[in-house]
Amino acid sequence: MTDFPLAPGSTLGILGGGQLGRMLALAAARLGLDCVVLTPDPDSPASRVVKQTFVAPYDDPAALAAFAAACDVVTYEFENVPAQCVDALIALGALVAPGPQALSAAQDRVAEKTFLNGAGAATVAFASIDHWEAIGPAAQGLGYPALLKTRREGYDGKGQIWIEKSGDEAEAFAAIGSRPAILEARADFVRELSVIAARGRDGEIAIYPLGENHHENGVLRRTTAPAPADQATLEQAERIAAQIMAGLDYVGVMGVELFQLADGQLLVNEIAPRVHNSGHWTQDGCAVDQFEQHVRAVAGWPLGSTAVMARVEMLNLLGDEVEAWPRLAADPDSRLHLYGKRETVAGRKMGHVNRMRGPV
Amino acid sequence: MTDFPLAPGSTLGILGGGQLGRMLALAAARLGLDCVVLTPDPDSPASRVVKQTFVAPYDDPAALAAFAAACDVVTYEFENVPAQCVDALIALGALVAPGPQALSAAQDRVAEKTFLNGAGAATVAFASIDHWEAIGPAAQGLGYPALLKTRREGYDGKGQIWIEKSGDEAEAFAAIGSRPAILEARADFVRELSVIAARGRDGEIAIYPLGENHHENGVLRRTTAPAPADQATLEQAERIAAQIMAGLDYVGVMGVELFQLADGQLLVNEIAPRVHNSGHWTQDGCAVDQFEQHVRAVAGWPLGSTAVMARVEMLNLLGDEVEAWPRLAADPDSRLHLYGKRETVAGRKMGHVNRMRGPV
Repeated sequence: MTDFPLAPGSTLGILGGGQLGRMLALAAARLGLDCVVLTPDPDSPASRVVKQTFVAPYDDPAALAAFAAACDVVTYEFENVPAQCVDALIALGALVAPGPQALSAAQDRVAEKTFLNGAGAATVAFASIDHWEAIGPAAQGLGYPALLKTRREGYDGKGQIWIEKSGDEAEAFAAIGSRPAILEARADFVRELSVIAARGRDGEIAIYPLGENHHENGVLRRTTAPAPADQATLEQAERIAAQIMAGLDYVGVMGVELFQLADGQLLVNEIAPRVHNSGHWTQDGCAVDQFEQHVRAVAGWPLGSTAVMARVEMLNLLGDEVEAWPRLAADPDSRLHLYGKRETVAGRKMGHVNRMRGPV
Repeated sequence: MTDFPLAPGSTLGILGGGQLGRMLALAAARLGLDCVVLTPDPDSPASRVVKQTFVAPYDDPAALAAFAAACDVVTYEFENVPAQCVDALIALGALVAPGPQALSAAQDRVAEKTFLNGAGAATVAFASIDHWEAIGPAAQGLGYPALLKTRREGYDGKGQIWIEKSGDEAEAFAAIGSRPAILEARADFVRELSVIAARGRDGEIAIYPLGENHHENGVLRRTTAPAPADQATLEQAERIAAQIMAGLDYVGVMGVELFQLADGQLLVNEIAPRVHNSGHWTQDGCAVDQFEQHVRAVAGWPLGSTAVMARVEMLNLLGDEVEAWPRLAADPDSRLHLYGKRETVAGRKMGHVNRMRGPV
């Protein structure tokens, strides 16, 4: 039986060994917690900063049993953890946070939008697509262009294609792998925002100020925060985040991507049941950052202060952009965060830099 | 041949596995560097946040060879690393920073004060003591009371005793183990300060604002920073730190403990060739903290900004004081840093808390 709050010296298990796991582990260490990681990668970024790594596929029964036995609580750093992996851990007695409800809502775009609308969080109109012949009629209803995405997986702009006009359906469906899909109406938004929010085991909620996001080719390029926003927008964003988290009985940090329309309305683009790239600015901009916040939440600690200490522009270092590190390290207003990835691949997130833009 | 600056993905070796090594490793990870640790402790605080730990005595030839082979550069987190350990590493081709000069100056209190005075940094008057019979005549010259300390080892008030009057000599010498000693005049100081300074491989220097220290029973209890100080005091402290570091051809962060006399003069109490407890406030008070600064220096990176972002009171959590963590975690103005030590021992440094005292 795990007692909350988890005492220092307890062990947090992380599914996934990427940069989010690494930064979670660093935050957990600051609080005196140990971490272990389960990942198939024998040399992952996270595994080099934790007590122990279980190198195995996520569905390896022996590894899952050993991992569960080593952990006081389990979390994950990516939302495409196989559901059966989490189910197996729970069957083994592990406490997994955020819970499987949040994972299933985040893993299937139709389930996600259905849940969101039910929770009172508006999204673009959408249709579930099981066959290419369903695309035409759905697009007629949603209007052209409409965005075809796989229901599951796909991130950073992968697994999606615009349906520009009638007649494109069969080819587009083939292009995304002829898999179960969702067709989404185009959001006529003026800007992309995100809200990073946290909910504790006692239902306590803490919400960071809004970040404004700029994507390139479907990948986050930069976030500026706190984003200028009127009181109505802030209240709308906080209400949306709170309703979503309450609806999932959520524990942990969540990233909620938003579209803001010309009339001010916020639509939810997607939710990430984990720490989020658009929340990296909190590392150098807030009293307690999103990583420590997530650790606090899953460990049953009181949530930390989301007070803003500085304005920040977070810039992702993609692919060989990371080679600018000597220049960035010499800039007194840049805080460098590198992920320890062994291989530089074009477009790959290798690190980020928080550019300090002065006091709030 | 190691090229500086060390590229991300390089490996920093740390001699010692305590909290300073742990916090160095966390800072190195943020910069994309890997760490390995050499420590005799099979479950040290640092070993749980690094890629690999070599568990062995510091004089184990096989372990030193394996450790040296794994590292691009080596540093240490305590100044009582055996000199032969560092000599062996250097003979194996390892690059050790700070260098052996700094270690020998810091390991022997007579050598330390002799070096300091030669470098233009004033200290209390002192005498080298090899036998108890030398104490009386020396104390006559220095005045009563005088402080008898072992020449080597001893920290946090251990291995020292006050000589209050003539006749106490034999007993006092026995009390510190009848070992080579130093007798120090009493410093009639009005406050204790420390300056945390860094020197890069290119001789660049960066100096943090002064901290004011409060000790209890010889152990640091709290540091408030930046300490109020007039321009003359600041310049004096910076000059002292710069002269000491230049005199040792120093690379890394150094802690310099100072006594301030009633007339404003600063005397050096002791130097620590490493990150220092009185610099922990920089974690939440400065642009780049002392841990990242040390990593930058030894890795040949440009030094980071020492700009102050907030006023901080750093409070050590000694022994069972760490049990206050739930209350401290709930305080929005406290930043908690716990060390992951398995056993709570009376007086042991278990963690610290940085209390945020507002903008500068």
